[in-house]
Amino acid sequence: MKHHRTEELSILAAEMFEDIRALSRDKAGVSRPAFSETETKTLDYLAARARAEGLCVTEDAGRNLLFSLPEHEIAKRFTVIGSHVDSVPMGGNYDGLSGVIAGLIVLIAARRGQRHLSRPVKVLAMRGEESAWFGACYIGSKLLTGTLPEGEFNAAHKGDGRPLSAHLEDLGIDTAPVKAHRPLCDLSRIEAYLELHIEQGPLLVERNIPAAVVTGIRGNFRYRDSRCIGQAGHSGAVPRAYRHDPVLAFAELMHRLDGTWQHLLNTGQDLVLTSGVVGTDPTRHAIARIPDEIGFSLDIRSQDTETLDRMRAYLKGEMADIARSRGVRFELGPEVAVAPALMDPTLVKALEKAMARVSGEAFSMASGGGHDAAVFAQAGVPSGMVFVRNRNGSHNPDEAMEIADFMVGVDILATCLEATS
Amino acid sequence: MKHHRTEELSILAAEMFEDIRALSRDKAGVSRPAFSETETKTLDYLAARARAEGLCVTEDAGRNLLFSLPEHEIAKRFTVIGSHVDSVPMGGNYDGLSGVIAGLIVLIAARRGQRHLSRPVKVLAMRGEESAWFGACYIGSKLLTGTLPEGEFNAAHKGDGRPLSAHLEDLGIDTAPVKAHRPLCDLSRIEAYLELHIEQGPLLVERNIPAAVVTGIRGNFRYRDSRCIGQAGHSGAVPRAYRHDPVLAFAELMHRLDGTWQHLLNTGQDLVLTSGVVGTDPTRHAIARIPDEIGFSLDIRSQDTETLDRMRAYLKGEMADIARSRGVRFELGPEVAVAPALMDPTLVKALEKAMARVSGEAFSMASGGGHDAAVFAQAGVPSGMVFVRNRNGSHNPDEAMEIADFMVGVDILATCLEATS
Repeated sequence: MKHHRTEELSILAAEMFEDIRALSRDKAGVSRPAFSETETKTLDYLAARARAEGLCVTEDAGRNLLFSLPEHEIAKRFTVIGSHVDSVPMGGNYDGLSGVIAGLIVLIAARRGQRHLSRPVKVLAMRGEESAWFGACYIGSKLLTGTLPEGEFNAAHKGDGRPLSAHLEDLGIDTAPVKAHRPLCDLSRIEAYLELHIEQGPLLVERNIPAAVVTGIRGNFRYRDSRCIGQAGHSGAVPRAYRHDPVLAFAELMHRLDGTWQHLLNTGQDLVLTSGVVGTDPTRHAIARIPDEIGFSLDIRSQDTETLDRMRAYLKGEMADIARSRGVRFELGPEVAVAPALMDPTLVKALEKAMARVSGEAFSMASGGGHDAAVFAQAGVPSGMVFVRNRNGSHNPDEAMEIADFMVGVDILATCLEATS
Repeated sequence: MKHHRTEELSILAAEMFEDIRALSRDKAGVSRPAFSETETKTLDYLAARARAEGLCVTEDAGRNLLFSLPEHEIAKRFTVIGSHVDSVPMGGNYDGLSGVIAGLIVLIAARRGQRHLSRPVKVLAMRGEESAWFGACYIGSKLLTGTLPEGEFNAAHKGDGRPLSAHLEDLGIDTAPVKAHRPLCDLSRIEAYLELHIEQGPLLVERNIPAAVVTGIRGNFRYRDSRCIGQAGHSGAVPRAYRHDPVLAFAELMHRLDGTWQHLLNTGQDLVLTSGVVGTDPTRHAIARIPDEIGFSLDIRSQDTETLDRMRAYLKGEMADIARSRGVRFELGPEVAVAPALMDPTLVKALEKAMARVSGEAFSMASGGGHDAAVFAQAGVPSGMVFVRNRNGSHNPDEAMEIADFMVGVDILATCLEATS
């Protein structure tokens, strides 16, 4: 893009971000609940902007919006640039929305004749991706791909307690195909799914790189409610040899897992490991009492299914070993697992090539958070993602994406779509 | 003691335990609140039993009871056998009470001519030892020794919220000397303070020994409210190298302290170490979030002041080291420390000699919990303690002391008091 044209598009993008921030402002940050009126207003605003630029706007069966150049409106097959417009409560303005606005800027640049798309493109502005509202995540893309589980269909809204099904029906969405696990859109028409998203970790900030190509979305296995059960006792009166202290057993477990994690990284494997919820029982614990148990969660993620399997086996082995040596018992509780979603290798290469053209050097990384792109990839749609540098993580009012970095991400998408092969 | 006489005294002791259990029964276990009516009823019951056996009963300025043989009532100097009659809420029947009944059985045996005490003995049945009621512990013995801090004098009752001072005044106790930190009894008249108590740990059960001589009462230092502060982040999106995970830092700290603890034991030092209260913040933690901090308590005890000082220095060193390597911050918070109270070496030897005579072999150990004996020892009264084997720890309805073991403890006390030197 020529410099002054990029400048114009930057200003346009910034305007759209700020208008939507204003219409969804909360006590802190923004709140755009899934399947809410604020979400609809956001889509209405985007539709008006798109029409003003001469783009076509249609609504799909999930009441998401699709934007396209007039000449692509009835294309049989097309590439989708998609993301979601909802946010977590009191969240940041960029998680989700940046992917939708990125797609619109690509289309506007093409409409203005600054870009020449080599294939039909539709921009998909989805509802309901954040799990903060109904517990379930990626609802919008699960509806489109026909993969919403029944339990999630009946999940209660965290605010009003009414089920997701009722909220969908309020919006006039036909829930019969949802119940029958039939996709709300014809997936065979989608050639590829591309998504731009802010990075939710600090890697691009730390490495001082404006954007990245995503190689895959980490899968995970999680234990929400694990426990280590030992034996209570007087903190002063029980000698070490007769203790079955669950806190020290948990500490040994985490310390060993931490060591293994470092080892796996040293051997080139992808892994992150977190125990985010830890606690002795407030109704029973005391400073002068060896606790009888400690509860904890585990969230272990990797791009690589084999690494996840290895780590799971290792975890169970360590637990058995520590249980033996300390006379405690570990109860892992139910496991929830999500398979890794690799991005399509051809798309990854094409995006890397585009990135190299835009900024001189390609940079690739794994995505730690889940995204709609994982749902499309798992439904068999070749998918690719671009990350944009962002400070302070996501899901909080302090998300901080620079428009200049955003425009690098847009440029990567557009350059990739301009390429003829 | 001759077998049939011991049998009679066992039955008498068991009767007293069961009568007092009945008069203080709660939904679970017994409740004998400090400075309460139930406590007074317990003392009244003991007074009646003592008078029926021909013992003298007097009340002191703290409304505790003193029992003695008639010939010792006006002795200038005497040995005290003491303990407390209050219990924790829904506690066991033996913590405290067993020490008082032990003293009475010694006096009854002497009164019946089965024992010949070589020196005057008074049995002291104290009120208010348990910290469960006013937060403060050893109130009864602190009143007698003039060492009750002003803060504890004004401490609110956990149930009715009224200050300790009001509860003392309700009982007709003159609080003027208490405020002036003047002892309620003449300590110079007390030659020695002896106390029998159930063991609160499992050592005697594990070693299969009915009783033990206590060498000292462990001192401790405690941190009620320590924290490790790191940096929050997305559990999937932050690579290991950029994490400042307080849970992993805490795990490393505890694992290192555990190793040092084992090392100190291997080199013959006395130590116990407990983190009884551990937790991430329930208002902020989540499975998919690296927590920004974790709170924890520490309770570290030893008979030896030097070991405590070494451990404190070691703790701070490890914290500084882990803070540096992991980019986290530890905040220890306010420290509360209690100095160890060594039992009088001459009394320890005399009790060991008595124990060897009673059961063939002496066994000595440290006390992990605090006791009234520590208050008397710190006030300069030569003190000694005997532990009796007890299952399931103390401060719970499952305390389980066998009367046969109790009688071994009584025999050790009586044998020691019979000795002429």
